[in-house]
Amino acid sequence: MPFQRKDLLGIRDLEVHEIEHILELAFSLKEINSRTIKKVPTLRGKTVIHLFYEASTRTRTSFDIAAKRLSADTFSITASTSSLTKGETFLDTVKNLEAMKPDIFIIRHSASGTPHRIAQRTPVAVINAGDGMHEHPSQALLDMMTIRQFKGRLDGLNVLIVGDIAHSRVARSNIWGLTKMGSRVIACAPRTLLPPHLESLGVQVASRLEEAIPHADVIMVLRLQKERQEQKLLPSLREYAVQFGVNAQRLSHAKKDVLIMHPGPINRGVEISPDVADGPHAVILDQVTNGVAVRMALLYLLGQNQP
Amino acid sequence: MPFQRKDLLGIRDLEVHEIEHILELAFSLKEINSRTIKKVPTLRGKTVIHLFYEASTRTRTSFDIAAKRLSADTFSITASTSSLTKGETFLDTVKNLEAMKPDIFIIRHSASGTPHRIAQRTPVAVINAGDGMHEHPSQALLDMMTIRQFKGRLDGLNVLIVGDIAHSRVARSNIWGLTKMGSRVIACAPRTLLPPHLESLGVQVASRLEEAIPHADVIMVLRLQKERQEQKLLPSLREYAVQFGVNAQRLSHAKKDVLIMHPGPINRGVEISPDVADGPHAVILDQVTNGVAVRMALLYLLGQNQP
Amino acid sequence: MPFQRKDLLGIRDLEVHEIEHILELAFSLKEINSRTIKKVPTLRGKTVIHLFYEASTRTRTSFDIAAKRLSADTFSITASTSSLTKGETFLDTVKNLEAMKPDIFIIRHSASGTPHRIAQRTPVAVINAGDGMHEHPSQALLDMMTIRQFKGRLDGLNVLIVGDIAHSRVARSNIWGLTKMGSRVIACAPRTLLPPHLESLGVQVASRLEEAIPHADVIMVLRLQKERQEQKLLPSLREYAVQFGVNAQRLSHAKKDVLIMHPGPINRGVEISPDVADGPHAVILDQVTNGVAVRMALLYLLGQNQP
Repeated sequence: MPFQRKDLLGIRDLEVHEIEHILELAFSLKEINSRTIKKVPTLRGKTVIHLFYEASTRTRTSFDIAAKRLSADTFSITASTSSLTKGETFLDTVKNLEAMKPDIFIIRHSASGTPHRIAQRTPVAVINAGDGMHEHPSQALLDMMTIRQFKGRLDGLNVLIVGDIAHSRVARSNIWGLTKMGSRVIACAPRTLLPPHLESLGVQVASRLEEAIPHADVIMVLRLQKERQEQKLLPSLREYAVQFGVNAQRLSHAKKDVLIMHPGPINRGVEISPDVADGPHAVILDQVTNGVAVRMALLYLLGQNQP
Repeated sequence: MPFQRKDLLGIRDLEVHEIEHILELAFSLKEINSRTIKKVPTLRGKTVIHLFYEASTRTRTSFDIAAKRLSADTFSITASTSSLTKGETFLDTVKNLEAMKPDIFIIRHSASGTPHRIAQRTPVAVINAGDGMHEHPSQALLDMMTIRQFKGRLDGLNVLIVGDIAHSRVARSNIWGLTKMGSRVIACAPRTLLPPHLESLGVQVASRLEEAIPHADVIMVLRLQKERQEQKLLPSLREYAVQFGVNAQRLSHAKKDVLIMHPGPINRGVEISPDVADGPHAVILDQVTNGVAVRMALLYLLGQNQP
Repeated sequence: MPFQRKDLLGIRDLEVHEIEHILELAFSLKEINSRTIKKVPTLRGKTVIHLFYEASTRTRTSFDIAAKRLSADTFSITASTSSLTKGETFLDTVKNLEAMKPDIFIIRHSASGTPHRIAQRTPVAVINAGDGMHEHPSQALLDMMTIRQFKGRLDGLNVLIVGDIAHSRVARSNIWGLTKMGSRVIACAPRTLLPPHLESLGVQVASRLEEAIPHADVIMVLRLQKERQEQKLLPSLREYAVQFGVNAQRLSHAKKDVLIMHPGPINRGVEISPDVADGPHAVILDQVTNGVAVRMALLYLLGQNQP
């Protein structure tokens, strides 16, 4: 069954066969990135516009590299360069850009639901590159791709997510994706950083890291934003590191083939210790490599759907 | 007769046959933007440098999309990234870039006359993308293209320009262009926002919007900069909206096929009401679409002239 | 003997035959920049990432133009857009980008030695585009190319470097390069702006400009940073101009075919007078033109070495 969507807004509303289709395509496109000439003409003459209203290096660059390796032309609008500073609404900015006949908008915005709202009002394909605390679907897809690369499967695995789940769009997209694909998701975090109703999403909660680690096939460590301390959700970063930091001592109780993942950028010595981040279980940079492939797959699927 | 200029600096010094030539070329290039592969090799291997010393989304992006759809390579210099912050003069910056052998400079600058001054001192083609309160020729060309698209002609039309004409390079370029092409231009604005000597440009002045609207074939609404209020040129934005805002009630006295235009970005509820901006008479987004085509035409004409 | 290096980090560790090889290649690639179609497919499908952690117009644009004229795809990361603001280390940023499979990093950084440190930790080719007060190898190469263009040789020439040698990576790279290639280098500057141990680098020191000018075949004028005055290394810019400014009166005692060079951006009326900067001896803009050719040569050599 072909991929029929106009947009890629979140993992929550994807069917299992759609996730399968994206991952398979990503695995097959990945090889382009190892060629001497890393470029195919698939999206030649297509116009891709990045609308990034939050700071980003890796996600924007990853999408941009993916687009150019498919031969698309890319353009970038940021909050600081845009007419938003002249009082224009975001929707008016988008409608103006739409009138220039682009094929794909890649949108990152601090307000949850913005890509969805835009997608309903434009014929242009929209990819959500992260909206507020809601979804970050390309991250969850690259995470699932990485797990499958190293484990060969997604179903029946125990995936432990550690950290600030309450504020994490990465966690939310992964929970929806992994449970759909048959993994068991276990969450571990200080109570102040756990969202309510996690159980209704099919997630188990472990109160202590020590209990959860021995059963985990995969440990996803989330970035701890320093602002959580200012918001009084944490006593201190040091306290957090002592109780929830993933370090070598704690990993000594893990399965021998456990995978350590992190969406980056990492805070060395806070949520993850340097020896674990750089150690043999870490697949953090493989996630980045797979990110380009997943984004190529998304651009390919949505760019091809255009008339 | 072919187009022979090195630069496109303003509408004031263009001949009627040159404007005709640009508009016809723009209409024929416009179709490229609807293709599956929106790219032609016309300017392959040409180097286009954007020198934007004022904030801009739509104009810079429009030129950039136009250039890349013609296969040019583009580069962008802004005031913040440039050596101006190191005390270099603008002319020295330009001469340095010239030494890198570009084909076209696209210049936006807050000082009126800057593109003209640069054009005299460089063999590189210069396009004025807006200089101070002087000219914005590509905007006037896209406006004329849009009127012709919907009205089939420019001569004999009544074009009403409403708003801050005194500070508007868009108004100035349109007045020169429209009167050359045989339109009658009527201006309506608070006295503090009307430039002196408008009559010598062939423009009639209407003191009240109600008088002027019934005769208009086209109403060009100008953006009201909020700083005009700080400069004490206006009592308040609300007062302005009451007296000069274009809204549905006022439009009820207009011709049935009146066109509503705006160069954007729009201030909803100030110079134009949302129902008019989004209503059936508005061709604001058609202006944006035509902007890409007009800029493709300018880049084509000046890029081809290069040795 | 072919060029075998993974990186281009500095002039200090280059062999004479390597410098010869780069310059010869640059002379042969230079012609591409005068063609109607200024583009060759040499680096098609290669990914070049600019990592500029200091402001720059000309160097970044020069590298970017060079890369695109060789058909590479380019991406730009700056300190302000990057995750450094999120607390990530520079090395982690680089390792993340490396995972996206680029071919060449072009790095400018305020900390001396940063490109070297990165080059040791990545398989990606690294070009140093200026590190602190250490080296700026592409600048020295374009300077040597320009001297050879006008003088036909480098050996046996007297090259006078005037200005803030202590803080100049341009001077340091040129001293290493020119002495290797057989030029005699003479330095002239206020004592506070002379580094210690210049003689050990094979450089003679002239205390007064008047003594040194008559013997010079080439005068390289360095940019005077205004911050040197704030650091109390200079009484005033005016005083500096009086004693060390290169002006027409002083040049009246120079050889008839002396070359005046400057790495830019120039401070007119401080280290160089306008009549000299724009006069018949100046080859300042030829340096800029050669800069694109030298950078094409470097990208060509390092891009081809990739597997």
